[in-house]
Amino acid sequence: MQEYISKAVIKRLPRYYRYLGELESAGIERISSEELSRIMKVTASQIRQDLNNFGGFGHQGYGYNVETLKNEIASILGLEIPHQLIIIGGGNLGKAIAGYPKFAERGFHVNAIFDNDDSVVGDRAGEMTVRPMGELDEYVRTHPTDIAVLAIPKGAAAEIADRLYGLGIKAFWNFAHVDLHLPDDAYSENVHLSDSLMQLSYRLKHTN
Amino acid sequence: MQEYISKAVIKRLPRYYRYLGELESAGIERISSEELSRIMKVTASQIRQDLNNFGGFGHQGYGYNVETLKNEIASILGLEIPHQLIIIGGGNLGKAIAGYPKFAERGFHVNAIFDNDDSVVGDRAGEMTVRPMGELDEYVRTHPTDIAVLAIPKGAAAEIADRLYGLGIKAFWNFAHVDLHLPDDAYSENVHLSDSLMQLSYRLKHTN
Repeated sequence: MQEYISKAVIKRLPRYYRYLGELESAGIERISSEELSRIMKVTASQIRQDLNNFGGFGHQGYGYNVETLKNEIASILGLEIPHQLIIIGGGNLGKAIAGYPKFAERGFHVNAIFDNDDSVVGDRAGEMTVRPMGELDEYVRTHPTDIAVLAIPKGAAAEIADRLYGLGIKAFWNFAHVDLHLPDDAYSENVHLSDSLMQLSYRLKHTN
Repeated sequence: MQEYISKAVIKRLPRYYRYLGELESAGIERISSEELSRIMKVTASQIRQDLNNFGGFGHQGYGYNVETLKNEIASILGLEIPHQLIIIGGGNLGKAIAGYPKFAERGFHVNAIFDNDDSVVGDRAGEMTVRPMGELDEYVRTHPTDIAVLAIPKGAAAEIADRLYGLGIKAFWNFAHVDLHLPDDAYSENVHLSDSLMQLSYRLKHTN
């Protein structure tokens, strides 16, 4: 039944996952859609609708089992499968991503970081050292890698994505400010930071 | 009529804004919804629906005037009003944001960056130097500031947001992995980087 979950619901699942993780850490075993609604600030009916999409773990009067629901969402999101990542771009953004401890906890292992700038190669980035781009092809051929993080300027992104696709990488987490045009069996998640800043600007203009 | 634009449409406007900016830079004056559909990879009917929300600048057979449409979207998003930002957190993420040149082009001026870690204070960040947190209150009192960027760990975010709200800041661009609970006249845009990584994980699991 997972195949029929809409994209909008999928986009909301990470937030459920985060809240359920916090409830679990707090030792809470069961939660009603009403309580979840109060903490997450979405309607209980939205929560019931969303969670019914994959079988509905709620039981009338009992609520949801926090751990079961969290694990089911993790499974839908593919979080039970470890992912091997590399970062292209050893600037501040690449380094910030390299040093982010939560990714590994969720099974996203960042194993290497590359840059073409000699002044950056050799820098520390998290637990790693920035490698020269000349080592990229050999690295990817010899280390299983399924996600490439593109923390590079817009102008370089398409060429690098092509090169990585040629090396067998199909998934791109793209921070470059350009939509990648990839072959049909590849896909990217774009992080356009300024888009979210524009949402804030909209609210500043229209809320006051 | 702008008051009636749905949140979903507002979320899509930055992407229109980006594409229209590129078309304008390329010297293109008019574009049909079909052409825009092809480049943006959304349906022409979605484009017409979205753009009709604010008056419909398209003319049957003529298409949209690129500059007019871009400027109208900029105005809806409040981009014609300059914003004054400060960054809390001088780590790699704070520095990455501080050094991002596009923000200023769109009227988001980052004027100062603060950190409570002595080993970071004094570092270069974009064109700035990281200031100690002890200077924050005085800075905000003497420099008009409408957006605070929180590039700090989760544990510190709520307290810092409260302090900034007390200083009169109402808008938070929040990179800390926690949903802020703010007074009714304040709001935040949360950037949960790992949420987007989980979307990629979902696609890796279900597309192959």
